Amino acid sequence: MASYKVGLESFHYQWSAAHKPVIRIASGDSISFDVNEVMSWQITQKSKAKDLARLDNAKLYPLSGPVYVSDASPGDDLRIIVEEIETANWGWSAIIPGLGLLPEFKKPYLWIWDLSGARKSGYVKFKNGIKVPYRPFCGVMGVAPKEPGEFPVMPPKLHGGNLDIRHLIEGSALDLPVWRRGALFSVGDMHAVQGDGEVCVTAIECPGKVKLKFELVKGAGIKSPRFTTPRTRGDNASEFSTVGIAPDLMEASKMAVRNMIEYLSNQYSLTREEAYVLCSVAADLRIHEVVDAPNWVVGLAISKSLLP
Amino acid sequence: MASYKVGLESFHYQWSAAHKPVIRIASGDSISFDVNEVMSWQITQKSKAKDLARLDNAKLYPLSGPVYVSDASPGDDLRIIVEEIETANWGWSAIIPGLGLLPEFKKPYLWIWDLSGARKSGYVKFKNGIKVPYRPFCGVMGVAPKEPGEFPVMPPKLHGGNLDIRHLIEGSALDLPVWRRGALFSVGDMHAVQGDGEVCVTAIECPGKVKLKFELVKGAGIKSPRFTTPRTRGDNASEFSTVGIAPDLMEASKMAVRNMIEYLSNQYSLTREEAYVLCSVAADLRIHEVVDAPNWVVGLAISKSLLP
Repeated sequence: MASYKVGLESFHYQWSAAHKPVIRIASGDSISFDVNEVMSWQITQKSKAKDLARLDNAKLYPLSGPVYVSDASPGDDLRIIVEEIETANWGWSAIIPGLGLLPEFKKPYLWIWDLSGARKSGYVKFKNGIKVPYRPFCGVMGVAPKEPGEFPVMPPKLHGGNLDIRHLIEGSALDLPVWRRGALFSVGDMHAVQGDGEVCVTAIECPGKVKLKFELVKGAGIKSPRFTTPRTRGDNASEFSTVGIAPDLMEASKMAVRNMIEYLSNQYSLTREEAYVLCSVAADLRIHEVVDAPNWVVGLAISKSLLP
Repeated sequence: MASYKVGLESFHYQWSAAHKPVIRIASGDSISFDVNEVMSWQITQKSKAKDLARLDNAKLYPLSGPVYVSDASPGDDLRIIVEEIETANWGWSAIIPGLGLLPEFKKPYLWIWDLSGARKSGYVKFKNGIKVPYRPFCGVMGVAPKEPGEFPVMPPKLHGGNLDIRHLIEGSALDLPVWRRGALFSVGDMHAVQGDGEVCVTAIECPGKVKLKFELVKGAGIKSPRFTTPRTRGDNASEFSTVGIAPDLMEASKMAVRNMIEYLSNQYSLTREEAYVLCSVAADLRIHEVVDAPNWVVGLAISKSLLP
């Protein structure tokens, strides 16, 4: 149960099983990561909208890691418990033409947020009296993919990655299937808050620190990410969610439902039919992200208050 | 501000501007509707799964109404406030092969629910210790469509209809664009509870009574349904939602976002870019229904606690 630190200098840009681990830990250990600004500090508090046209996209998504988890091997479940998140005192949101859900937005737009005091007040000021809740999480948490080679961070896949699941706040737990020996976990893309969908392609992007605890569930055999949220959210009940990840929202929805049916029937001794009906009457389909082309993430959430 | 009653005998099956109104009311009036069982009482507490194969689908969706609202004309917003819902003491859920999200379910399945005591306890018992919350709403609320002719109730459209939006519980308000003189509102398809998506094609289907209040907003010019939920839901804040309705989830998502951008920029003096960013950081995309072929309903919800 050791505690470690991974500094700003320990990062990489692509997913690959070939990256040299920056640290080796055991199940039960935790790490405080310093997380770089998502454009590798090309955006600062002084940036203007016109600067967005000059960004070097090769420096997008610096990920802290990878972390080698001793004894992790394919077929295991790496559970990542989000213990603490601390954002910097500023962040940014942008419209970047060519990205985002709506093609009609053709001009770059940049908004710099003041995050100082947000943890205490619980919100961040926008304009005209509008304030958004402060609910920081990391947009990217993933392990090395099964396939050999290098892969961009943008699309999420079955190894996790750029899931942009806003529900992964402090107190939540993400389960990722392990595909490679040591798992090779990395984290990045901190967000001060985001809506389900992340429709314009950015949340409140910010650097910061995140403390994660790692637990290995040997031989769990999960095939997709899944996650559990703390009681502090929503209807004040913990939720369990499965996800589907696909280039089509309908296919992603089906995957999420199939994963939940498998989970509910296994865990609560239900037939598949009973589990399917339970999904229909009591579980919620949410579009977690619809902008990390070409893969979208749909989640199916069930309140744990329903379950014995 | 009169109160009226519409009984079980006053119903129709298709959407059509040609239906004769069963009652005429004025803005501000309310009506208590008796709502028929969604299969016109072909399913009872004694039904078995094998009975599902013998259903007469021409008797699906008996809708109470239509209601003629004096002075309602195209371009108006008909606001329907859900004042009270009382379900019967039983309901049913089924897997009906050929319908629902997952084609691999090929056998009919039926579950009869005991709803007695559900209003008091707040939940409905399933099996193995599982209980689902009791949150009744009406799956269908709509007005006569713009187009001439008769239309089946199954797919929701811009006149509302089979929206299956689980959030339309007591205390919520649905805004529908008026397409025809008198609006010609009808209601049906009561559900004791449902998850976002209604993935197996049924919720807890039940007959019951619903009391609705009608308010006319003259010349509002809304083009799609939208709705507001009460404080009792979710994060204990009222939410405002726009929707998109389309045969493709991506298109429906875009419609919902465009409708919210229009609303936020108009109501809160934001540029379209600011409204788009606000959607990205603080509004949630939900799949309200993905089974009422061929049209799916996606909602974008923003907590009113964010707004001044």
